[in-house]
Amino acid sequence: MTQWLRFSHKNSTSIGTLDGDVITVYSGDMFNAPTPTDEKVNLGDVAVLTPCDPSKIVALWNNSRALAEKQELTKPEHPLFFIKTPNTHLPTGQAIKQPATYDGRVIYEAELGVVIGKECSNVTVEDAGNFVFGYTCVNDVTALSLLHADPSFPQWARAKNFDTFGVYGPVIDTDVDTSKLTIRAELNGRERQNYTTDDMFYSPLEIVSLISQDMTLLPGDIIACGTGPGALPMKSGATIDIIIDPIGRLSNPFE
Amino acid sequence: MTQWLRFSHKNSTSIGTLDGDVITVYSGDMFNAPTPTDEKVNLGDVAVLTPCDPSKIVALWNNSRALAEKQELTKPEHPLFFIKTPNTHLPTGQAIKQPATYDGRVIYEAELGVVIGKECSNVTVEDAGNFVFGYTCVNDVTALSLLHADPSFPQWARAKNFDTFGVYGPVIDTDVDTSKLTIRAELNGRERQNYTTDDMFYSPLEIVSLISQDMTLLPGDIIACGTGPGALPMKSGATIDIIIDPIGRLSNPFE
Repeated sequence: MTQWLRFSHKNSTSIGTLDGDVITVYSGDMFNAPTPTDEKVNLGDVAVLTPCDPSKIVALWNNSRALAEKQELTKPEHPLFFIKTPNTHLPTGQAIKQPATYDGRVIYEAELGVVIGKECSNVTVEDAGNFVFGYTCVNDVTALSLLHADPSFPQWARAKNFDTFGVYGPVIDTDVDTSKLTIRAELNGRERQNYTTDDMFYSPLEIVSLISQDMTLLPGDIIACGTGPGALPMKSGATIDIIIDPIGRLSNPFE
Repeated sequence: MTQWLRFSHKNSTSIGTLDGDVITVYSGDMFNAPTPTDEKVNLGDVAVLTPCDPSKIVALWNNSRALAEKQELTKPEHPLFFIKTPNTHLPTGQAIKQPATYDGRVIYEAELGVVIGKECSNVTVEDAGNFVFGYTCVNDVTALSLLHADPSFPQWARAKNFDTFGVYGPVIDTDVDTSKLTIRAELNGRERQNYTTDDMFYSPLEIVSLISQDMTLLPGDIIACGTGPGALPMKSGATIDIIIDPIGRLSNPFE
């Protein structure tokens, strides 16, 4: 099992692999033959950053059988998605913020994130795994009341892209069997989401293949595989954790 | 009048200002006190690139009074928008491509692009101009038949984000009076769009102010102000030009 992370230590940004609480520091590009250094640092002595800088986060809607059943939806003919922009990026530990200009409901959504490792376009399902670097936890935060505030135009881009609404990490795990994952959300320590990857209409590798037909995917890009049942509004002061074993726990306060 | 561009010359990428056909080469960051060098090159000797690298293109829908009237829409309460991702970016002169996996209609949309010069969040209309670097021409290319192919979910992100679908340039003009601009499209030399900025529901500075309430805008980010009437499908072999005087002409073949 290899878990990559990015962190700030002594005023510089580094990458490394995590083993227990010890980080082995690497130099170079996480996605292109990084080199281990002799340096090791303790996890407790660094500030954990987002593990990568996606040029885009492609986030799926309606990819859960259980949720589709509740919403009287069926499997779409192609993955349905919206985009989350770089201003949304937030690492574990930092505060998700209620927008200054919006006082409606803000919900969490626990999702599995696929992290792309190599540029890819029009790849087959069979080949898709060769372009995946690993997997991370995603909290796809949403200003729910805006989505359908205008009857002429669903505002996915607006509801999904306030600053701090694209939460992912804490690490990228490169050795995950995605056939058997459980994705969970705990709101203030109480479990609110618990669904498995076999509830997904499209598997992670099917998604990579199909999205790569729509747009070239680049190293560090993330595809969030869509959420299951149980996404709820957060109150100020709440803590929201997204947990995917063996990837880890993405934990953020909401203010 | 200052027109900034980015270009490739002798295997390196540079920035500069354009005066007639002569480029004065600058060093440094276009948005942060770039320094003129002694070097001048002829426009004909360089490959013109996109003038900047937006982390996001925010593109408006329903911002034209004339188009809204045809579509029985009214002025929205807030600018309605979708996102164009970095894989779409295309400079003047290069080919817009029919996606390999989509054989439906691909349309051009001529738009004014606002280029942000300084990071901004929650700026007032009165202050918005201080965060604008300049203006560029945008061709917001769209895979029209996908937009409403799934009745449960309008696919703006998919229809707008195929590679080569985000065309902008050729320059960023820093001295434009946006109250009086005419935005035109010529398909194979025949004028197909011709509308003015005073047809817009929201002016460029109103848009910057309102979008900055939704998301932090960064230097180089572009807001495409929405198109007017006359967007049409392109046939293979077509040439599509977006012309905004005094900014210039954005000209691309379609394959």
